[in-house]
Order: sequence, then structure tokens, then C-alpha cells
Amino acid sequence: MTRLEQQLEFIREIDKVKNIYRQTYLADGQRKENDAEHSWHIALMAVLLKEYVPGVDLTKVIIMVLIHDLVEIDAGDTYAYDSAGAETKREREVQAAERIFGILPKDQEKLFRDLWEEFEEYKSTEAKYAHLLDNFQPLLLNDAADGISWAEHGVKKSQIYKRNEKIEETSEDIWKCMKDIVDKHIQKGNVQDC
Amino acid sequence: MTRLEQQLEFIREIDKVKNIYRQTYLADGQRKENDAEHSWHIALMAVLLKEYVPGVDLTKVIIMVLIHDLVEIDAGDTYAYDSAGAETKREREVQAAERIFGILPKDQEKLFRDLWEEFEEYKSTEAKYAHLLDNFQPLLLNDAADGISWAEHGVKKSQIYKRNEKIEETSEDIWKCMKDIVDKHIQKGNVQDC
Repeated sequence: MTRLEQQLEFIREIDKVKNIYRQTYLADGQRKENDAEHSWHIALMAVLLKEYVPGVDLTKVIIMVLIHDLVEIDAGDTYAYDSAGAETKREREVQAAERIFGILPKDQEKLFRDLWEEFEEYKSTEAKYAHLLDNFQPLLLNDAADGISWAEHGVKKSQIYKRNEKIEETSEDIWKCMKDIVDKHIQKGNVQDC
Repeated sequence: MTRLEQQLEFIREIDKVKNIYRQTYLADGQRKENDAEHSWHIALMAVLLKEYVPGVDLTKVIIMVLIHDLVEIDAGDTYAYDSAGAETKREREVQAAERIFGILPKDQEKLFRDLWEEFEEYKSTEAKYAHLLDNFQPLLLNDAADGISWAEHGVKKSQIYKRNEKIEETSEDIWKCMKDIVDKHIQKGNVQDC
């Protein structure tokens, strides 16, 4: 296969992520969103909200969020509050990363694999910002869709706080906004106050 | 409204583009794709194929393709080969750009509006690359889905060539690949040889 043929095979393969559905509803509450839509949304949010995370490398973050869910083509979406699924998540996703990024020419495989590992490690400024976006976007959609996804899954405030424990160190402004949304949905009875 | 509130209102508003469906089927042929999925796909293609368009500003192209279809929230998707729709497209889309980008703080409104106009003008290297991606991606999907969208609409080779007349000057390699795909689907009877 030529280099271009390898690239085109990858482009066709990743089309499958449009059929990986998440637990988050669209803002209008009419259906759940898929990984491609989610990744588009947070890539654009990365552009809009970068002022809240000074010094971040925007291009690196955008590429990171564009590819961060591709492993779910093989590994499936593990819901944020699914503790049983979380136990096997890493192993399933590493195998997926090897197969899917392995379709690409070596240099592009390394670029994407390294960015995905950096995202997973959650240590660099870019990884922290990518996780902020990855967590903030479904919160905004859940808020817009009147909290139905939280209510459906009986989500507790403590679960949301645990999942987002590193957001405050990335951006105090965004974390304050997220807490306000959670408080509003505790009042509404969509999030459990425990 | 605070600056962050304006940004969040925009982030909620653009969620609607996930419900703007195009005429292109997913690679598996099971359903049509929407603008958010399409925009995600070509943003990632921008990263992968930049070597075919030397000197391009990747970050600018990515932001351009992430926002290029937002006007369709108000103006709707105009099919590539819909000549009646094309007549009123510009006016509908300019009004949409004013309303939708106008939700943002002034500096970000200007950033997105300018990038959208640059895309529409189709003159800069970045705009040419963005159009290449915007045209190449549905061709790849149509090919993967066995040409059903072309067959449904009775698309002619001359229409495809007319729509893609500037691709060759952007990348000879990609244009050759596109021509090969069209030829294949003429052979298969999905594209009309006229």
C-alpha cells in the first residue's frame, strides 16, 4: 500500500466512530450523541475557551481531542459512572489503539498514539485542558437537556465531583461554572445530593 | 451577560448542527451523516493530509473546517448539485453568519466570521485546502458506500468535475485519486459518463 492508501484506509476506518453512541443527550434532548459529534464539539470549544487555560498549545489540544475517542471503535463507550466497565477499560483501549492507529504510516501512527497516551496520562497542560473539555461539554448538554441523563442513571453529586476532581487546578472559572450547574440540578432533583 | 456566558450560549447554539443532515451516507451506507460528523472528519483529515498542500497553516485550516458549516443551522444544507438552492445560498448563509457568530464576544465573532468569509472566498491556501477536504471526504464516503448517493441523485461526471475544478491546483495527488474514484463509479454505473 502507498502512504496515501494507508491514510485513506484510516480515514474510512474512523468513520465508524459516528456509530459509537454516548450516554449524553443532545441539547434538545431528542437523541443521544455519538463520539464524532462530541469530538467536533470539544475541538471547537478548545478554540473558544483557551483563555481560561493560559499557555496551552491549542493545535496539540485540538488534535488530541479529535482522536481521543477513536479507541472506542473497538472498545466501546464506557459510561463515566460505570465502575465495572472502568476496570477493563485500559486494556481494551490499548488493544484498540494498536489496531486503529496501526493502520497509519509509522510517523502518523506515532503522532496519534503519543497524543492519545498523553491524554490518558492526564499530566500535561494540554491533557488537562482536553479532559476539562471532555467533561465540561456533556455537563453543558445535560444541563441544556434538563438533566435527563443524570436522572436516568441516578447520578450522585459525589460521583460528579470525583470525576472532575482535577478541573479546579486547570481552570477555577470553569470549575465554578460546573459546580453552579450541578447545584442547579440538585435543586431540580436530577442529581442526588450525596 | 458575562464573556463566559456568551461563549456558553454559542456552545449550546451550535449543538443544532448535529441535526443538519447532508446527502452523503456514512461509509457503511446505513444512514446519512450530519454536519458535525462531517466537520469532525475533515478536521482530522486536515491533520493527516497536510503534506499534500505544502506551506498550509494547519491550525487555521482546522478552525476553518470546524466552523465552516455552522451557517447551515439557519440556512440548511444545500446539496452540492442543487443549482436552484445555490442561487439563494449566499444570502441565506450571510444572514445566518450574522446571527450565529453574533452570539459570541466581539473578538471571537470576528475571528470566526473572518475565517468563514475566507473559506467562502476560496482564494487563500488554507481556504483551498479546506475546500479540498470538504469535497474529498464525501467522495471517499460515497465510494465506501458503493456510490448510492450519486446513483440516487443521477450525478454526472461533468458535475463532479465542475465542482472540483480547483482541486488539481491545490494537490495533483489528491485530484488524481479523486478522478480514479469517479472513473471506478462510472464503470459501476453509479456516476453518469457525461
